[in-house]
Amino acid sequence: MSLLMENQFCELPPDKAIDTKTFLDTVSHIPAFFDCLGSKVFSIIKSDINGNITKIRAVYVTNPAKYTTLEDILVAEREAHGAEWPKIGATLALMWLKRGLRFIQILLQSLADGDRDENNPNLIRVNITKAYEQALKRYHGWIVQKIFNAALLAAPYRSNFLKALSKGEEVKEEDCLANMRQFLVNYTATIDAIYEMYTNLNAELDYTV
Amino acid sequence: MSLLMENQFCELPPDKAIDTKTFLDTVSHIPAFFDCLGSKVFSIIKSDINGNITKIRAVYVTNPAKYTTLEDILVAEREAHGAEWPKIGATLALMWLKRGLRFIQILLQSLADGDRDENNPNLIRVNITKAYEQALKRYHGWIVQKIFNAALLAAPYRSNFLKALSKGEEVKEEDCLANMRQFLVNYTATIDAIYEMYTNLNAELDYTV
Ligand SMILES: CCCCCCCCCCCCC/C=C/[C@@H](O)[C@H](CO[C@@H]1O[C@H](CO)[C@H](O)[C@H](OS(=O)(=O)O)[C@H]1O)NC(=O)CCCCCCCCCCC
Ligand SMILES: CCCCCCCCCCCCC/C=C/[C@@H](O)[C@H](CO[C@@H]1O[C@H](CO)[C@H](O)[C@H](OS(=O)(=O)O)[C@H]1O)NC(=O)CCCCCCCCCCC
Repeated sequence: MSLLMENQFCELPPDKAIDTKTFLDTVSHIPAFFDCLGSKVFSIIKSDINGNITKIRAVYVTNPAKYTTLEDILVAEREAHGAEWPKIGATLALMWLKRGLRFIQILLQSLADGDRDENNPNLIRVNITKAYEQALKRYHGWIVQKIFNAALLAAPYRSNFLKALSKGEEVKEEDCLANMRQFLVNYTATIDAIYEMYTNLNAELDYTV
Repeated sequence: MSLLMENQFCELPPDKAIDTKTFLDTVSHIPAFFDCLGSKVFSIIKSDINGNITKIRAVYVTNPAKYTTLEDILVAEREAHGAEWPKIGATLALMWLKRGLRFIQILLQSLADGDRDENNPNLIRVNITKAYEQALKRYHGWIVQKIFNAALLAAPYRSNFLKALSKGEEVKEEDCLANMRQFLVNYTATIDAIYEMYTNLNAELDYTV
């Protein structure tokens, strides 16, 4: 489980404020996750998520002192952009990034929980579909949903996916799942806090692409 | 037909050498073409093509005097990279870029030639499919081909596409097609010359994604 374990998210402080620099440094390892899916089809998604991270970082570096926490960025952009906000800037990038992160979270959680298709125990389509339905589907029009269904056919076998997450090392499945559960603790708390922030600031949009 | 007419390709010299700087400046307007397809589904493709151009430009700017023509780049990379070439660097980026350019060329040519589905005269699916089959299909595995078929459903109506190419101006269809034919002259010659160069240098690959 090296890929995830080597890049664990930090525990949140009691006020759940997320330090921008720490977040960016940790999350920048997440796009590599899509390489574990094996097919080049997914490199498209990797670029989209990479783009989100680049956009947030670009805002952050203009004034690190001002943008110490993710909330600082959203609040500043709300001031700066008027009616265009929240469909703009790092606010928009993080809005989509959190959905991709949630997708990954639910996928890993579903694997850790042992959800599986008993007729095809070495496929992860049920887990991917669960993650897609909960994290992304409602933001996708019917054509992108069709594209998702086609892309699903490129999903790797369960065993290959777990092996890739362990960077090719032969790790026992139980150890891999235990590492996953460990990783999910702070990862899930961080994503939950970002979602909560979008709700509190009224920054969430539900248009479809 | 402003989008294309304002950014015409240059006539090639007799030796068909393509000046790198001129090519990059002209081709950098092409990704906007995908916005004319109307759906956000196509912005993914736009990024892929933008990535190709960025990659070629990144090589060019390291030494403009050395990389005066596109062929200079390929020859230098062949020297520099040994067995990894041609699946590397600007050679790889231009290999894929030329396929996207060919796709657009065949699509425009097919519209200019009046190919259409008599039962659905305001759809351009036949034209897009023709372009896809000739320029890209053989480089795509079956999953990406399925994704193409889903994406095809997001193709715009013929009338809207022609209007978007004219940047929203009400141009008579015949004028729009005449502009297209005009644009295609140097554009097609340039693409043909790039394909010829890949054949001559034995730089073409036919792996699928
Ligand atoms: C030649 C043949 C091909 C034909 C054409 C094919 C085209 C295929 C396109 C399919 C869509 C790919 C997924 C990408 C979708 C993206 O459109 C969305 C929205 O993307 C956001 O859009 C915003 C503006 O509205 C900003 O630009 C954001 O950018 S900004 O940073 O600039 O603000 C950007 O992220 N992101 C998403 O839906 C996020 C997706 C996240 C992860 C999904 C995991 C799914 C895994 C599936 C496993 C089976
Ligand atoms: C959440 C749900 C979503 C689930 C996931 C969805 C994923 C969808 C992915 C679909 C594929 C989209 C098309 C992109 C395909 C690309 O994979 C290919 C090869 O791309 C090349 O690959 C190289 C390495 O092999 C280098 O990285 C090149 O990069 S380098 O510069 O670094 O060297 C790169 O361009 N380009 C292509 O096939 C080119 C495509 C050109 C234009 C096509 C026009 C088609 C128009 C169709 C109209 C109907």
